[in-house]
Amino acid sequence: MKNDSPSAGGRHTSNPAPNTLEGFAILHQFFRIKRREWARRSAHERAQVLAQASATFAAMGEREDGQSALFSELGHIGDLLVIHFRRGFDELAEAERELVGRGLTPDSSQWREAMATEMAEQCAKLASRLFPKIPQRRYVCFYPMNKRRAGADNWYMLPLKERQRLMHDHGLIGRRYTGQVNQIISGSIGFDDWEWGVDLFADDPLVFKKLVYEMRFDESSARYAEFGPFHLGIRLAPSDLGRLLGADQNRNP
Amino acid sequence: MKNDSPSAGGRHTSNPAPNTLEGFAILHQFFRIKRREWARRSAHERAQVLAQASATFAAMGEREDGQSALFSELGHIGDLLVIHFRRGFDELAEAERELVGRGLTPDSSQWREAMATEMAEQCAKLASRLFPKIPQRRYVCFYPMNKRRAGADNWYMLPLKERQRLMHDHGLIGRRYTGQVNQIISGSIGFDDWEWGVDLFADDPLVFKKLVYEMRFDESSARYAEFGPFHLGIRLAPSDLGRLLGADQNRNP
Amino acid sequence: MKNDSPSAGGRHTSNPAPNTLEGFAILHQFFRIKRREWARRSAHERAQVLAQASATFAAMGEREDGQSALFSELGHIGDLLVIHFRRGFDELAEAERELVGRGLTPDSSQWREAMATEMAEQCAKLASRLFPKIPQRRYVCFYPMNKRRAGADNWYMLPLKERQRLMHDHGLIGRRYTGQVNQIISGSIGFDDWEWGVDLFADDPLVFKKLVYEMRFDESSARYAEFGPFHLGIRLAPSDLGRLLGADQNRNP
Amino acid sequence: MKNDSPSAGGRHTSNPAPNTLEGFAILHQFFRIKRREWARRSAHERAQVLAQASATFAAMGEREDGQSALFSELGHIGDLLVIHFRRGFDELAEAERELVGRGLTPDSSQWREAMATEMAEQCAKLASRLFPKIPQRRYVCFYPMNKRRAGADNWYMLPLKERQRLMHDHGLIGRRYTGQVNQIISGSIGFDDWEWGVDLFADDPLVFKKLVYEMRFDESSARYAEFGPFHLGIRLAPSDLGRLLGADQNRNP
Amino acid sequence: MKNDSPSAGGRHTSNPAPNTLEGFAILHQFFRIKRREWARRSAHERAQVLAQASATFAAMGEREDGQSALFSELGHIGDLLVIHFRRGFDELAEAERELVGRGLTPDSSQWREAMATEMAEQCAKLASRLFPKIPQRRYVCFYPMNKRRAGADNWYMLPLKERQRLMHDHGLIGRRYTGQVNQIISGSIGFDDWEWGVDLFADDPLVFKKLVYEMRFDESSARYAEFGPFHLGIRLAPSDLGRLLGADQNRNP
Repeated sequence: MKNDSPSAGGRHTSNPAPNTLEGFAILHQFFRIKRREWARRSAHERAQVLAQASATFAAMGEREDGQSALFSELGHIGDLLVIHFRRGFDELAEAERELVGRGLTPDSSQWREAMATEMAEQCAKLASRLFPKIPQRRYVCFYPMNKRRAGADNWYMLPLKERQRLMHDHGLIGRRYTGQVNQIISGSIGFDDWEWGVDLFADDPLVFKKLVYEMRFDESSARYAEFGPFHLGIRLAPSDLGRLLGADQNRNP
Repeated sequence: MKNDSPSAGGRHTSNPAPNTLEGFAILHQFFRIKRREWARRSAHERAQVLAQASATFAAMGEREDGQSALFSELGHIGDLLVIHFRRGFDELAEAERELVGRGLTPDSSQWREAMATEMAEQCAKLASRLFPKIPQRRYVCFYPMNKRRAGADNWYMLPLKERQRLMHDHGLIGRRYTGQVNQIISGSIGFDDWEWGVDLFADDPLVFKKLVYEMRFDESSARYAEFGPFHLGIRLAPSDLGRLLGADQNRNP
Repeated sequence: MKNDSPSAGGRHTSNPAPNTLEGFAILHQFFRIKRREWARRSAHERAQVLAQASATFAAMGEREDGQSALFSELGHIGDLLVIHFRRGFDELAEAERELVGRGLTPDSSQWREAMATEMAEQCAKLASRLFPKIPQRRYVCFYPMNKRRAGADNWYMLPLKERQRLMHDHGLIGRRYTGQVNQIISGSIGFDDWEWGVDLFADDPLVFKKLVYEMRFDESSARYAEFGPFHLGIRLAPSDLGRLLGADQNRNP
Repeated sequence: MKNDSPSAGGRHTSNPAPNTLEGFAILHQFFRIKRREWARRSAHERAQVLAQASATFAAMGEREDGQSALFSELGHIGDLLVIHFRRGFDELAEAERELVGRGLTPDSSQWREAMATEMAEQCAKLASRLFPKIPQRRYVCFYPMNKRRAGADNWYMLPLKERQRLMHDHGLIGRRYTGQVNQIISGSIGFDDWEWGVDLFADDPLVFKKLVYEMRFDESSARYAEFGPFHLGIRLAPSDLGRLLGADQNRNP
Repeated sequence: MKNDSPSAGGRHTSNPAPNTLEGFAILHQFFRIKRREWARRSAHERAQVLAQASATFAAMGEREDGQSALFSELGHIGDLLVIHFRRGFDELAEAERELVGRGLTPDSSQWREAMATEMAEQCAKLASRLFPKIPQRRYVCFYPMNKRRAGADNWYMLPLKERQRLMHDHGLIGRRYTGQVNQIISGSIGFDDWEWGVDLFADDPLVFKKLVYEMRFDESSARYAEFGPFHLGIRLAPSDLGRLLGADQNRNP
């Protein structure tokens, strides 16, 4: 995606926005399995749908330039979470259409996001950070967030220096978890109801609680963060999709 | 539409409202495709519905005095977005009825708006701005918004001069994006739950993020704006409607 | 309805409520047309339902002492709006039952209200204002509202004198629209989740925007009003109900 | 129910809660009639269901120690409201099961409450107030409420003396309506999302509006009350249940 | 679960989070019985489903290292509540899958939680508290909660000493209910939309009201607590599941 911001050299009459570099476009999709409808199909049809869906997810997970990853969600919030990294929005729309063609319609009652990754300001970035692979960790924690604009707690009215100080302190917490967690922050202002998306990847899910809890006491979160729904996913190999769907689910009282 | 405001010459006992000129009446419609119902129909019936719907959208897109435009939405929020510009509310109601007659029932769970365009105050306007064509850009970003009335952050209690200063500074940001984005602001107070609608049209969707992010740091947004759901659409040629609906979608697990 | 308020002569230990006179009981009903179910019926059955519903609405619209009026709604929010004026709540319940008997079940996801009209304080009222006909205008704008009780902006903590001054100034705005708009304010405290209902009737719908926008800058609205969903209706002659339902709607993709 | 509060004699390190006496356990159930499903049944089956349901409601209404009462709701919010007074929660669960066994499944989208009646502090109570009959009035007004905990308006941070003064003044308003309205306040903290339930019973429904409106200007409501949905019911004799269900409702467009 | 927090020895640049010890992973599942679908099945099929479900719940309730318990819910909010204690999230996901395999799909409209138990800071803990059995009480009260971050009432901005003082006073209230109620607090930050879950177990449900009411006047609740939906459950022996489902429920009007 292009990166020629007209504001870069402009005269700022208002509080300046941070400069950003743009990486992958990202889409999170949430699916709910309609188990009764599934159970009503013939064994042959189920096997065929499973084979096609597994093959599609497997292929998407092995793409070189912009992968997709599959997770099963814990708790009532949903059944499947699919994360797509792509070069642009048209490529995301294409991924959406491909899953629909495999019979996978996302759950419209769930939160959705369509966003471009955004990198932090004032840092030289490597292509590997702007266009990363999806980390190979067993668990994912995803949540959207806003910066607050409420009375005395208005992030967007803070001077740039103060915002930089707060984000610097905030970053120090994350740094202590290096090696335990991979964090991908994406910006969705203008694309979504929430301003940011946070993906955390780890091999021990308790790390999510420790990291988010510790950050909540940091002033940038304590005073200025608003959080959306939290999603907890366990990585699902495409070949294990059948195990999630089960073979015997037509007896719900 | 008529423009004889009784307040124009009246004695104001309260904080004065801006004067406005009125242009097109505008309606945004959101559709969700019921893929299972669609898949159950015969190939013949699907072809017939598609042909009729495509022809209707094509004709609406070529109207001289008040067009309609068709977009596919990215993400879970919906499948189709249709924007109508018309001379008045009865003509909008007629456009609604015409689509219903083609089998297109809008998604009632989505946000709706029915509004007249409103032009900024104290500016001479050309007919082309009051009664514009829908810009020929590939992407649209649509969101509704309110001006805040919360404690110390109450837009409607600000003196006129202060509101003018804030809107002037706000406008300078937009001006830096001239050529990259077309912006159409419409007023829906009295017609809709939200007070304003914003349509941005661009050929590069990242421009939406840059523009909206930069504006968020401007005092008029930072302190006084409340935002509704964001919709991101990719222009869809009426003849490509069939590609969106697909031909093989009856296997959702 | 009776009007013997026990508070009229009582010793007020708290902030006094305004005295009120009571007129018609009012009910707004919202209907959504289930087009697929409608399309599945036989032509004969549809004609029969239409004839009965049209006759019922026509008879209700010609009542001498408490009418009903029919509107089609613009936008996704709903399809039909029916306003009932009656002498009391039992008569409203009877009107509800009569429409249910004609196959018209209100849309439970919509906002509802059941309320008695209330007249402003300290004014001699004529029977025509307490028990009015529904104005013969082409457009209706309906919205519910509350008076705020939030921190420093608490209407119910204001002294009576201050409330009277604010309402007087507020009334001056409405007065400038005399002849262009008919306004009926009803009180629903104790009957509904919202405290008030506002019905505006006009022949030019832009008047709704001008009036509501101008009022929003008035201190009584700017600081003290909370607004619910806005409904915009176009008057529908009972004999035109068939045109709204259409004859060919069984092809929604 | 038992009444041995461990806090009665304890050393209070925090703001003291009022002492309470416990009476009946109370449950409000809301039902929506599925008219299409009802209409599809045979006349014989409908007669049988009606006879059983009417008999059950009649028997529940004549219980000696903890009655149930039946109301039809006005407006879209629902169709039937049933109020149960019982000795404890297990007896309420039994009443629920009995109605389910009669084919009456409560509407899960509606607000629910399960609560024990609570009596005001510092008053000697008679058994008739703790374990009352359901008043024989034609109309009921039911709404849940909370005491506010928002910034400077925090009920639970007020000293006991101040809370007592406010509740005393509040009570004076209710006292002026003696004879016109019966009021039953129940406490649902720990049982329900709302902290309190208010049931008003009267023969003239306008009394509800007058009483609630007048109280809203009282400081204890104006500053400290948050209100949930309001329900307005008209008493329904069990033998009139058939009239509410109607005999001819299978023609909704 | 592991307990090596990277923050334990780190230099705190921000407000320190409490240290925690980690016990069981906990999941609350809510089920709604679809009575019409249930009634449509054959008597044979119903008996078979019941037998399997009862056996599964019985086995889960007798596990040595991480039990499950079954409750019927009072009021409209739901029908069944199942609480699972397990060693980790993968074991919770396994319990979910086992119930789905028995035909039990949780109610996605309900609140969900997936969380690890957390113990209070600065206390030596016994394994029995980190890995407890589910208390053998007849009633359960479950609700989620947050600590507030609103203007002057921001828990996460309080110094550690002040938070410790408030939690100490808060604990004194709970201590007065020793023997009457078992309380299990779990932390869900990073896993769920709510930060904490509270399970109270008692043999007299009035204890829930007394305890929660008394605590609400405590500063830590009055100023700093936000509460989610309250669930009240009555313990259900797996062998009594059939009584809840009933045998004769196919006649809902």
